[in-house]
Amino acid sequence: MHDKNKIEVCFTPAIFKEFANPEAIVVIVDILRATSAICTAFMNGVKRIIPVATLEEAQEYKNKGYMVAAERDGIVRDFADFGNSPFNFTRDRISGKEIVYSTTNGTNCIMMARNHFRVLIGAYLNITAIAKYVISQKRDLLVLCAGWKNKFNLEDTLYAGALSELVLANDRYDTICDSTLAAVDLWHMAKPDLTGYIEKAAQRHRLRQKKLDDVIEYCHTFDQTTIIPALKDNCLVKLSEL
Amino acid sequence: MHDKNKIEVCFTPAIFKEFANPEAIVVIVDILRATSAICTAFMNGVKRIIPVATLEEAQEYKNKGYMVAAERDGIVRDFADFGNSPFNFTRDRISGKEIVYSTTNGTNCIMMARNHFRVLIGAYLNITAIAKYVISQKRDLLVLCAGWKNKFNLEDTLYAGALSELVLANDRYDTICDSTLAAVDLWHMAKPDLTGYIEKAAQRHRLRQKKLDDVIEYCHTFDQTTIIPALKDNCLVKLSEL
Repeated sequence: MHDKNKIEVCFTPAIFKEFANPEAIVVIVDILRATSAICTAFMNGVKRIIPVATLEEAQEYKNKGYMVAAERDGIVRDFADFGNSPFNFTRDRISGKEIVYSTTNGTNCIMMARNHFRVLIGAYLNITAIAKYVISQKRDLLVLCAGWKNKFNLEDTLYAGALSELVLANDRYDTICDSTLAAVDLWHMAKPDLTGYIEKAAQRHRLRQKKLDDVIEYCHTFDQTTIIPALKDNCLVKLSEL
Repeated sequence: MHDKNKIEVCFTPAIFKEFANPEAIVVIVDILRATSAICTAFMNGVKRIIPVATLEEAQEYKNKGYMVAAERDGIVRDFADFGNSPFNFTRDRISGKEIVYSTTNGTNCIMMARNHFRVLIGAYLNITAIAKYVISQKRDLLVLCAGWKNKFNLEDTLYAGALSELVLANDRYDTICDSTLAAVDLWHMAKPDLTGYIEKAAQRHRLRQKKLDDVIEYCHTFDQTTIIPALKDNCLVKLSEL
């Protein structure tokens, strides 16, 4: 049926231009940990998040008085208020505030997708809300996996498969994209024991080495919110406030 | 064990530079159909294959008297001797000859890998021979999937998974590469009915539309030869003649 909406999954920002589809809704995912942290911040009442790619930009915002989340290799930067773990974005710290989140890969993904119909921040935490929104809009879905240093990663791919499965359950949607088919199959394989499957992912090992792996289970928890962070003027706000 | 050899899989030539590993053996795969055709040509006695990226180069070689395989969108070019299907490389046509094979994607893959220890042409047709050679060399393995227009494809990924499984059976090898882990898992899923699984691949549909899908089963047949085509001075020869 040529009038069906399509789903595509882009495994790494390095090939995003091959998927460009300005009428599509782009869902950006960096499950461990940026997009899970951003969704958590909105769950806990943040007003606006300014994503920045470099520590220099983060520091500039700090100098202007913003609250800043910035770490590298698991170490919170001197100038920052806290690190990038979702657990840092507690209600008492961030409710009602504008904050800056330093994430090189995530910010690059957001910026390269900005000429699309919508740019949304995806996590398991809001996965059903995102699927429902996509279906309600009757638009193509393009999942952009942040990956790792321009490479494929397992944890973002599994999320892409899980989201694709939810959207493909609607008759209006179809896919002929090999990446989507692979993501869905990997998701089916991982689903019965998701965090068990994630044990072998390279990022799982990196987080363990840095003692940042307390977030694994939380970042793979479904549907803790219906809030969807969305891009507006280079910042993230609630989709409902666009 | 830090002294183990590693296996990595690169899903698309667009990100090959991220995997560069000059001491590694690179296996290039474009299962449907270029690398299956090249292996077939060597099975049938070809002496040397000159891979070319453009039809213009293919035509120049034809003008110099070479036998040329060149097609686009399933139509054999006027100047060419035959098309790119493995079935065209029959012994009576090519035995003992030097031929030119036109493949944009395959040639680009070969050229970008040429500074590595070895560049080999992989197919199911010679998969066990390749696995044995890699293991005998005690070197890292890097599988370069030709993919499709810089995107991931299923059929090359499954081959990467199958080859990785064979090599990982040797204790000397290990992988922490998410792409390899995904390829192996997809391979395990597809293995019980490989051509059935391939039915959903985008390239399967493209070949069917162009009536070029008579090669699917053949291109997924294991171990028809122990010959391994290898790169030497921008041409492909038998590895045993290097």
